[in-house]
Amino acid sequence: MVMPYWFFPLHIRTGRRATMIDWPQCEIVTIGTELLLGQIEDTNTSYLAREMGKIGVEVRYRTAVGDRLEEIVHVLRNALSRCDLVITTGGLGPTLDDLTREAVAAVAGVGLEFRQDLMDQIEVMFRRAGYRMPENNRRQAFIPAGSHAIENPVGTAPAFMAVVDGKPVICLPGVPRELKHLFKTEVIPRVHDFFHMEDRKVICRILKVAGMGESKVDSLIGDLIKPGANPELGLLASIGEITIRIAALAGNHTEASSMIAPVESEIRMRLGKAVFGADEDTLEKVIEDMMEGLGKTLSIAETFSGGLAALKMYRLPSSRLVSSTVLGSRIRVEAVAGVSEATAEESASALARSVSEKAGSGLGLAIFGFLVPSGSSYSVKAAAAVHGEGIRKHFAWEMGGDIATIQQRGAMIGLNTLRLALLEALNPDSLS
Amino acid sequence: MVMPYWFFPLHIRTGRRATMIDWPQCEIVTIGTELLLGQIEDTNTSYLAREMGKIGVEVRYRTAVGDRLEEIVHVLRNALSRCDLVITTGGLGPTLDDLTREAVAAVAGVGLEFRQDLMDQIEVMFRRAGYRMPENNRRQAFIPAGSHAIENPVGTAPAFMAVVDGKPVICLPGVPRELKHLFKTEVIPRVHDFFHMEDRKVICRILKVAGMGESKVDSLIGDLIKPGANPELGLLASIGEITIRIAALAGNHTEASSMIAPVESEIRMRLGKAVFGADEDTLEKVIEDMMEGLGKTLSIAETFSGGLAALKMYRLPSSRLVSSTVLGSRIRVEAVAGVSEATAEESASALARSVSEKAGSGLGLAIFGFLVPSGSSYSVKAAAAVHGEGIRKHFAWEMGGDIATIQQRGAMIGLNTLRLALLEALNPDSLS
Repeated sequence: MVMPYWFFPLHIRTGRRATMIDWPQCEIVTIGTELLLGQIEDTNTSYLAREMGKIGVEVRYRTAVGDRLEEIVHVLRNALSRCDLVITTGGLGPTLDDLTREAVAAVAGVGLEFRQDLMDQIEVMFRRAGYRMPENNRRQAFIPAGSHAIENPVGTAPAFMAVVDGKPVICLPGVPRELKHLFKTEVIPRVHDFFHMEDRKVICRILKVAGMGESKVDSLIGDLIKPGANPELGLLASIGEITIRIAALAGNHTEASSMIAPVESEIRMRLGKAVFGADEDTLEKVIEDMMEGLGKTLSIAETFSGGLAALKMYRLPSSRLVSSTVLGSRIRVEAVAGVSEATAEESASALARSVSEKAGSGLGLAIFGFLVPSGSSYSVKAAAAVHGEGIRKHFAWEMGGDIATIQQRGAMIGLNTLRLALLEALNPDSLS
Repeated sequence: MVMPYWFFPLHIRTGRRATMIDWPQCEIVTIGTELLLGQIEDTNTSYLAREMGKIGVEVRYRTAVGDRLEEIVHVLRNALSRCDLVITTGGLGPTLDDLTREAVAAVAGVGLEFRQDLMDQIEVMFRRAGYRMPENNRRQAFIPAGSHAIENPVGTAPAFMAVVDGKPVICLPGVPRELKHLFKTEVIPRVHDFFHMEDRKVICRILKVAGMGESKVDSLIGDLIKPGANPELGLLASIGEITIRIAALAGNHTEASSMIAPVESEIRMRLGKAVFGADEDTLEKVIEDMMEGLGKTLSIAETFSGGLAALKMYRLPSSRLVSSTVLGSRIRVEAVAGVSEATAEESASALARSVSEKAGSGLGLAIFGFLVPSGSSYSVKAAAAVHGEGIRKHFAWEMGGDIATIQQRGAMIGLNTLRLALLEALNPDSLS
C-alpha cells in the first residue's frame, strides 16, 4: 500500500519534532527467535504501536531479536540511547531461553532479585488450574533488583518495569491476551504517570469511512489536513476502508475533546453517510447494532468473496446472521436464484431475495460476481444487493487484483451496501 | 504460542554458532513510518525471514524505522556492525520521504549517481501503463555510486545492492508483489554468489502434519531431534498444524537431498497419515488435488467455524467446492439436516449427507458445534463428518479458546477429516 504523504504528521516526515505535540519517543523490542524465523506474524507490535499512538506516545523503532543474552542486551542499550521509553514483549517464560529478566538486569547493572510475592502469585495460578508448579517456573519470580513487579492475573509470567538511565523499560509477556490485558490495566497508567501526561493530554479520535475512495476523501477534506496543526489530521487507506485520525493536544481531557468535536462535525458533514463509525467500530459491528435496533435477522449469499462477509459477521460474539451460503459456480446461482443470462445486479438482487425467503430471515444480502483471469491476477464484474421487508438496494462495480484482495474488497463493499440499506430503513427521511 | 525449546537449533538457543551449519547472519530493516504506527502488518519481513531460512541464511535481527534520514543511517550502521548481510524493504518510492537511497549512500560514504538505464526502464513502465512519467519519479533513477542496479520488471522502483564494509546491503521495494518477485529472481542468486553458497549447500525440507497434537508428535519423533546434528530437525506448532523442518548441509544439492531422504522416510513412517504434505503444500491444496484425482466435487456446511473451511478452499485459484453454507443456529441445522436432540456426531453426519444431496455434489463435509461462553472465552463440543459416494467418516472433539482460534482449529480439523476420508477412498487397502 502506498501511503499518501500527508498521512504522516510533519514532524514524522521531516525528522523535526513538532513544537505543538511533543510525544514521548518509544522503541518496541520483541524478544524471541520464533519471530526471526518468520513463522509467526508479530501482531503484538502493531497492537502496541496503535495503542501507543492513542495515548500520545510515538513509536520510533521496532526491533526483533532472538533468545540470546548478548544480543538482547545490545538491542536494549541501543533503544535506551535513542528513545525515552522501551517496551519489550516476550522472553518472560520459565525456560532457560527466556532471557528478558537477565538482559534488563545486565543493562541496569543490577542482579536478579527473588520476589516471594510473585512466587506466591505463580503458585496460586497453577493451583487454580489444578497443576503442581514445575520447578523451573521459580525463574519467573526473579526480576531485576529495584524494578517494579507488575502482577499478571491472566497468566503465569509476571511483568515488570525497571528504570534505567532515568528511562522506563517495561517488560511484557509475549502471549497476546496477557500483553493486551497488562497494557490496558498496568502500562497506560504507569506511562501517564512517568511522563506527567496528565498535564498535557493527547486525545485521538478515529473516524472510519467506507464506500468512498481515497482520492474522493482527499478532495473533500484535504484542505483540513495541515501537518503540525492542533488538532492534527491523518489518513490511512486499507482495503475497503479509510481511517481518519484526529489528534488534539491540550491541558486536559475536556479541553482536548472540545477541540476535536468541531473538526469531527466538519468531517462528518462533508463525508456524510460514508463515515460508518468511530474508534473501535468495525463495519460488521455497526451492522450488527443496527439490525439489533431494527429487530431484524440476516442471511447472506456470496460467490467470489468466498464467505468472507459472513465470516466477519460470525466473528462477533453474537450474530444476527442466521445462515449464509457460498455458491461456487454460475450454474449453482441459477439453480438457487432462478435467473440466467442476467446482469450482475439482476443476479445479485435475485440471490438476495432468494436467500432471505428460503432462510425465512428478515433480510438477504448477496455479493455476486465471478473471477476472470487477467494476466497474473483476476478481475470481476461484481454486484451487491439487499432484499427484504420493504428494503431494496443494490450496487455494481468492477475491480481487479489477487484473490485475497478481491475477496476482502468484495466483502467490505457488500457489507457497506447492507449498512446503507439499514441506514435508510432507520432514517427514511435521509434518503438521497 | 509457546515454542517448544527444541524447535530452535542449538546455535540459536545458546548463542553459539553451530560448527556444522554456519549460516550467514542477516538483518532485515523495514523502512517506513506506516509500520511504526501499527496500521499495517509487516508481512514482508516474515516472508523474507522464511525464505532466507530456506536458502541457508539466518535472520538475527529485524528492525523497523521511520522515514527519517538520520535514523535510517543509524539503523543501517548498527546492522552492518552485527551482521554479514543487510536487506532493506521500503523507502524506494519517488517522494521526498523515500530516503533509502540517500541513507545507504551516506553509510557507504558515497554520493548518488544518476543511471540513464534505470531512467529508461522507469519511463517504459509509465509509457506501457499509458501515463506520462511525473517529474519526481526521476529520483528513482539515482542510486548510491558504485552499487549494482537491480531492474524491477513488475514496478517502477528500481532496487539495488551496495557493498559496504565488504558486506552486501540489498534494498528492495516495500510492495509485497515486487519484493517477492525480486527476491526470487535477483536476491537469491546474488546472496548465493556473494557467500559462495554453491560450495556449501543448505537444503530445507518442510513436512506438514495435521490431526496430531504437538506432544504426540514429540513422543513419536522427539528422539530424532538432536540440535546441531546434520540434518537438523525443528518443529513449529500453529493452530491445527505442525511443521517439521529438516535442514541438511552438504557440498552440493544432490548430496544434501540424499541426506534428507532417509530422515524424511523415517518421520513419514512414524507419523503415517498425519503427514499431509511437504514444503508449500496446504491442507486445502492437498484436498483439492485429491478431489481432482477422484473426479469429485464438494459441498460444505459449517456452524461455529463461520465458513472458514470453505473460505480456505475458495482462496484456491480453482476450486472443486461447488457450494457452502453456514448455519447460525441449532434451529437452522434441524431445518436443513432434519435431526434434533442428536449428538454432535449425529448432527454433523446428517448435515454432511443433507448438503451433499441438496447440492447434487459428490461429497458433503459438515463442521458442527455451538459455542458456549466459558469465562472470558468459549468452549465447544464439535464434530466433523464426511458423507457421499460410499464415503463415510466422522470425528468428534472438544476445545476452548477465543472465537478466532476456535474457528481456525475447527476449520483445520474439518478439512483434515475430509483429507483422511479421501485418502481412504484413494487407497482402500490402507484402512486402519
